[in-house]
Amino acid sequence: MTSTPRIISLLTDFGTQDGFVGIMKGVVLGINPSVSIVDLSHDVPPQDILMGALILRSAIGFFSPGTIHVAVVDPGVGSTRRALIVETAAAFLVGPDNGLLSLAAPPESVRRVVHLTNSRYFPPHVSRTFHGRDIFAPVAAHLSRGVPSDDFGPVVTAMERLTLPIVAHAPHRITGSVIAIDRFGNIVTNITAADVLPYPTESLSVSIGPVQIHGLTSTYAAVPVGAATALLNSWGMLEIAVRNGSAAQQLGVQRGAAVLITDQ
Amino acid sequence: MTSTPRIISLLTDFGTQDGFVGIMKGVVLGINPSVSIVDLSHDVPPQDILMGALILRSAIGFFSPGTIHVAVVDPGVGSTRRALIVETAAAFLVGPDNGLLSLAAPPESVRRVVHLTNSRYFPPHVSRTFHGRDIFAPVAAHLSRGVPSDDFGPVVTAMERLTLPIVAHAPHRITGSVIAIDRFGNIVTNITAADVLPYPTESLSVSIGPVQIHGLTSTYAAVPVGAATALLNSWGMLEIAVRNGSAAQQLGVQRGAAVLITDQ
Amino acid sequence: MTSTPRIISLLTDFGTQDGFVGIMKGVVLGINPSVSIVDLSHDVPPQDILMGALILRSAIGFFSPGTIHVAVVDPGVGSTRRALIVETAAAFLVGPDNGLLSLAAPPESVRRVVHLTNSRYFPPHVSRTFHGRDIFAPVAAHLSRGVPSDDFGPVVTAMERLTLPIVAHAPHRITGSVIAIDRFGNIVTNITAADVLPYPTESLSVSIGPVQIHGLTSTYAAVPVGAATALLNSWGMLEIAVRNGSAAQQLGVQRGAAVLITDQ
Repeated sequence: MTSTPRIISLLTDFGTQDGFVGIMKGVVLGINPSVSIVDLSHDVPPQDILMGALILRSAIGFFSPGTIHVAVVDPGVGSTRRALIVETAAAFLVGPDNGLLSLAAPPESVRRVVHLTNSRYFPPHVSRTFHGRDIFAPVAAHLSRGVPSDDFGPVVTAMERLTLPIVAHAPHRITGSVIAIDRFGNIVTNITAADVLPYPTESLSVSIGPVQIHGLTSTYAAVPVGAATALLNSWGMLEIAVRNGSAAQQLGVQRGAAVLITDQ
Repeated sequence: MTSTPRIISLLTDFGTQDGFVGIMKGVVLGINPSVSIVDLSHDVPPQDILMGALILRSAIGFFSPGTIHVAVVDPGVGSTRRALIVETAAAFLVGPDNGLLSLAAPPESVRRVVHLTNSRYFPPHVSRTFHGRDIFAPVAAHLSRGVPSDDFGPVVTAMERLTLPIVAHAPHRITGSVIAIDRFGNIVTNITAADVLPYPTESLSVSIGPVQIHGLTSTYAAVPVGAATALLNSWGMLEIAVRNGSAAQQLGVQRGAAVLITDQ
Repeated sequence: MTSTPRIISLLTDFGTQDGFVGIMKGVVLGINPSVSIVDLSHDVPPQDILMGALILRSAIGFFSPGTIHVAVVDPGVGSTRRALIVETAAAFLVGPDNGLLSLAAPPESVRRVVHLTNSRYFPPHVSRTFHGRDIFAPVAAHLSRGVPSDDFGPVVTAMERLTLPIVAHAPHRITGSVIAIDRFGNIVTNITAADVLPYPTESLSVSIGPVQIHGLTSTYAAVPVGAATALLNSWGMLEIAVRNGSAAQQLGVQRGAAVLITDQ
């Protein structure tokens, strides 16, 4: 444990109305009053594990090494799904074993995966509906006080992983797909900055649904209101947006739809 | 005052757009820079004292003893309603005397109720519309620095109390009522886990509005999309939900509606 | 630098779903782990510089002197607009040079304006879309550690300023205009408490759109549901509201509309 305050980040799909996030913070601070708690997001669309995993992956690189990230998007709470600590080169990830932690923990970065079974770190009664409060918050708090990760249970060798659809490359063609729609209706694809790096951005055409968009822009504001634009978003992923509108609705596009980039 | 940082939680119906909650935090940190501030909720439905009181009651058990909970759902601000500190075995509650604090402070737990009148702890000008900033925030901050509660004004003997409708028990029958509808349309009743404890959950039937639901489930996900289910929620109260829908809308149920549980 | 923890406040139009605000906090705490971070608002209407500037102005007086306020409502990100520290008698303001900081920094209060150019305080790669993360967060964090403001770049002599429309005074007549509509549809005008101070509030009439409102009230609740009322809001500005409704919609009023106050 370092002598500077440790950081615990929280990502959930709980929303902020009902006090559940505040309760998790109460549990954490009761165990480690000097930890700093940062909200990553509590407005992950309900039970949307992939969106939660994408947000977590986009964020961890900007936190100090050793930060503890608690993530709870957990449709399987109360079932047999396991609870985990995933220790990587960059961070400790604490949450359910349903893929939520996996995009932030590529296999080569993983140092240790621990199955949370040591009830010494849980309250006497663990509810079936609120492991954020009863398991993940207290485990993260004890971890922030310097308890070694393998004290929370046995080290295991595998974890659930989300697999993003693969981006296909051919000469002058990149084929990807839509992996998420955000709350503004912006369309997030699996195509990354690295995928399009070989091509000059002004020579690319992006085909999605009924439209073909010529060139990538660097901001939403680069096109008129109501027009579709393609850009690399703050996560480094290709996004299709409609200025001041919902691209998903306007283009009739859903998760899984194909995206084709050509260069000519 | 302990040597560890004290915690102040905040619960309001202010929303988070206008900066009012941030201003309260500025006032608190100006008086006690080392306190930890936790948001319980700022999305209590406007002026919904009962919902605020329920959230506060559900949360206080998960905070360290001595935590200071500031609650501001305050339709009577600027009128003659009093401002209070309620000191209980578990916590200090700071807010208006309109019932908001009462569910978290059952009579047997109350050690002292103080009427906030000592203007030494208020700014020179107290507004008529924003006591969260001008009274409750500075009082909580001074309290967190160790000022004794009775330094803020006279000890009083009574406080406003909300009375939840009573749950009626008869052989094989429990009769309760709807006390809140949350933002998802989930229906919260006054029937608690303790009320239904004597009965096996699979033998219970819950009648509400036009439907009868057989058995309690332990998660929303236990029924098909669009179906109604009854469960004990994270507050330990009987809740009727429609998976991925609004139970209140689908069942045409409002606050005050009757709920009947039978066991056969 | 004082020995007490410094405070950094954050105001953005990022919303709270995507993790961007959490990422800014990760960057700040990576540089100064002991700073206290306060959210002012992240729900400024997208790209609404004036609304952001009004919220910032309303808040800074309630924070300790020396607080660092980071504000990012930044439609020009990636363009040639400058990034600034504005040091005033009360605070350090950090953000884009687009007027956002100007209402909180009236000319007579400004001690120094610094153009942020010293890349020593930026990460190796500065994105074109997320200066909140790459410029404003690290600069604020280094500032909170005691780096002098003029170490971040050259002192400059001017900054962009928003000009609110002027309130015109004539005997028994005050003419102002609508400067903002909040998310509830409340109508905020440029007329302040100081403007109406000479007149008894019960003798004033407020004309806006199709209605004339007699007298100022002190709370929304002073009129029946659905009725329009005029009051001085928590920012000290004249506001027209409809109880439990949208005044802007009901009165058909938009930003820029005229407001006339007469006294008779």
